[in-house]
Amino acid sequence: MICDNISVNEKGHLTFNGYDTVELAEKYGTPLYLMDEDKILQHVREYAAAMKKHMPEGSKPEFAGKAFCCRQIYRLLKDEGIDIDVVSSGEIYTASSAGFPMERAYFHGNNKTDRDIEFAMESKVGCFVVDGLDELEAVNRIAGEKGVTQNIILRVTPGIDPHTHKKISTGSVDSKFGTAIETGQAMEITKKALACENIKLLGFHCHVGSQIFESDPFVTAGEIMIKFIFDVKTETGFEAGLLNLGGGLGVRYTENDPEICYEEKIAEVASSVKSLCKDFGIKEPKIMMEPGRSIVADAGMTLYSVGTVKEITGYKNYVSIDGGMTDNPRYALYESPYTVILASRANDNKDFTASVVGRCCESGDIIQENVALAKPKRGEILAVLTTGAYNYSMASNYNRVNRPPVVMLNSEKDYLAVKRESLEDLCSLDI
Amino acid sequence: MICDNISVNEKGHLTFNGYDTVELAEKYGTPLYLMDEDKILQHVREYAAAMKKHMPEGSKPEFAGKAFCCRQIYRLLKDEGIDIDVVSSGEIYTASSAGFPMERAYFHGNNKTDRDIEFAMESKVGCFVVDGLDELEAVNRIAGEKGVTQNIILRVTPGIDPHTHKKISTGSVDSKFGTAIETGQAMEITKKALACENIKLLGFHCHVGSQIFESDPFVTAGEIMIKFIFDVKTETGFEAGLLNLGGGLGVRYTENDPEICYEEKIAEVASSVKSLCKDFGIKEPKIMMEPGRSIVADAGMTLYSVGTVKEITGYKNYVSIDGGMTDNPRYALYESPYTVILASRANDNKDFTASVVGRCCESGDIIQENVALAKPKRGEILAVLTTGAYNYSMASNYNRVNRPPVVMLNSEKDYLAVKRESLEDLCSLDI
Repeated sequence: MICDNISVNEKGHLTFNGYDTVELAEKYGTPLYLMDEDKILQHVREYAAAMKKHMPEGSKPEFAGKAFCCRQIYRLLKDEGIDIDVVSSGEIYTASSAGFPMERAYFHGNNKTDRDIEFAMESKVGCFVVDGLDELEAVNRIAGEKGVTQNIILRVTPGIDPHTHKKISTGSVDSKFGTAIETGQAMEITKKALACENIKLLGFHCHVGSQIFESDPFVTAGEIMIKFIFDVKTETGFEAGLLNLGGGLGVRYTENDPEICYEEKIAEVASSVKSLCKDFGIKEPKIMMEPGRSIVADAGMTLYSVGTVKEITGYKNYVSIDGGMTDNPRYALYESPYTVILASRANDNKDFTASVVGRCCESGDIIQENVALAKPKRGEILAVLTTGAYNYSMASNYNRVNRPPVVMLNSEKDYLAVKRESLEDLCSLDI
Repeated sequence: MICDNISVNEKGHLTFNGYDTVELAEKYGTPLYLMDEDKILQHVREYAAAMKKHMPEGSKPEFAGKAFCCRQIYRLLKDEGIDIDVVSSGEIYTASSAGFPMERAYFHGNNKTDRDIEFAMESKVGCFVVDGLDELEAVNRIAGEKGVTQNIILRVTPGIDPHTHKKISTGSVDSKFGTAIETGQAMEITKKALACENIKLLGFHCHVGSQIFESDPFVTAGEIMIKFIFDVKTETGFEAGLLNLGGGLGVRYTENDPEICYEEKIAEVASSVKSLCKDFGIKEPKIMMEPGRSIVADAGMTLYSVGTVKEITGYKNYVSIDGGMTDNPRYALYESPYTVILASRANDNKDFTASVVGRCCESGDIIQENVALAKPKRGEILAVLTTGAYNYSMASNYNRVNRPPVVMLNSEKDYLAVKRESLEDLCSLDI
């Protein structure tokens, strides 16, 4: 199995964190998002421990909530050695109303509205990741109106393309995010930030992309950023105390993705950053990373009931499930790979090949093409693995389909973290 | 302007159905979906009148609610000469709770669950569009349990590729929808349907795809379907009284799309169908079409506030707005073209070229690339035209962004049809 929280029991049913998935499907209905709480905490602790061990003092990860955002995740993270990144008033409200201490939150986004900025300050968000000049001016103005000094870091673009999917590549100069070092605009905004009377600049942020399996892009980003910190020190006297290298490491969606050791990669990045600081004669900044996907992806699994099984003579086979692009739009958006298993008969021979498709009236509503599995029957349970990141968070009500619940699994119990949307909920905002 | 409901007033503000969009943005806030009620009804009446005039007796359109589904649309359609197509329990609930007479509903979908089938029968849905063998058996079984005879039509695939986007092409043999005529499976399911004791077969359905500007694909589909109806009559004695040709006609998203006359295209299809019926010696079936996009698309417009305006020296410019792929995922999914106008200064020279991007922390969050417009300032209003179809209905809460309200405009008043989602709403299902 692609992750150690997945197995098969004596009934031939797929298990997840020790739970029989067929029994969970019966108990909660399908479609159903499962989240392995123990796996989430294991990853959080791996990142936090590795960064503490190898990186300069004070270094730590932030959980990127956009990968999976609901109140319960913030309750779980509150007592862990991790900060959070938030990207909207909605994420701020969710974390804050779950009791997460918001001084540990970093507020991201290429386009914070004035109302977002006000709401974040009212919610006592610790630090803004300021994306550009318009925002810098707005944050300074609103902080002044509120009589506060706002901590910020500046997002800059290092000019790196990490060869990931173009829709999740973020570090190149031509990006909607940040200001570019290469064009001189990053130096310019730094000087402006240092001159803002209601702003305290703590350091810098960059982000090269998502689904990265090697330390190289982070090492390269570190090289560019340490050099930039040195240049800023030389030109302005300001020495950054914080460097956020963005993102996290890659996730295994299928057997084709490599297994990687997060600590090893983090140690490689740390070693490079420390040696660069020595070379440039600057103090070691606190390093931050922002894992989201790699905290929650393999902590997630989606269960569906099989509906129609269609064999088109001479063409191909289709297995339709009772969810689809509404709860997992990632194939429709990026043709993302997933591992699919017939949970009801997980040990049976995989002698049937089919497109696993959703229930929406749309040809693009596909979960995965060319899946080998035991030929399913109407009513059997199908599992799609590694769906903890960007599935629940990107879900929609397309075709007026209600969104599935999220059930958390830990060593003691299974429990609802998010309830199933009802038909009434779908119309709750309709006049 | 690409549609006659759009103009510019003396202040240089874009207007929609006569309303000043900048004033609407102030009144309701942004992002904001606008829907021109008069334009919706105009299209409905065009389709209904043209089909009544040219097609065999009893022919009429069904509104495909998946393009835009909320209670208010069904209230508007209730007294019009149009039926509806529904694709989920959620759509059935929405229409039914708005008082739409459900005997005028056709229930579509490649994968209706047993619970959906039960709910549709309990809601007295007039006709099922049965997609395949598994569903036929389930409908017959459940109808038997409920002691009803269920009217159905059978969805078959005519084997046509109308050269539209592959994600919205549906008529080829290799499709998750329907059963194929070519493979003999359509004839087989017809015989089974005729033998089902709790089912009454009324006719057949096919669908070739979306965004079709010529009558040819419908004419070709009609040829194949009339031949199939003849073959069925020959083999079984059953003569179909209803033929649903699926879909509707194309929509002008930009100046590059042609202007078409719906009545002319409908007349061409009608003429072909009638002459084929004569040739084959079968009675003329009632014809149905299922426009969704072409009823609501140009009745819609989305208003945004401009946030960050970023000029990357030597690269390109970015204009960020306070919505994006959360309220309009169609560029992210299909790279769909849209017309974008600076509503605040709609007559100003379009001397600035930019990517118009959303606020999500995702590089793929793009509304449109290479847009020429007057250089916008933070706080000005930007309009994206022709967003009435598949925008509200595909919206998500990605990045925990709340969904915009829908405001309807008619000749007498502007009014809320769907309220803005609040921060509390975003967490309403969280434990």
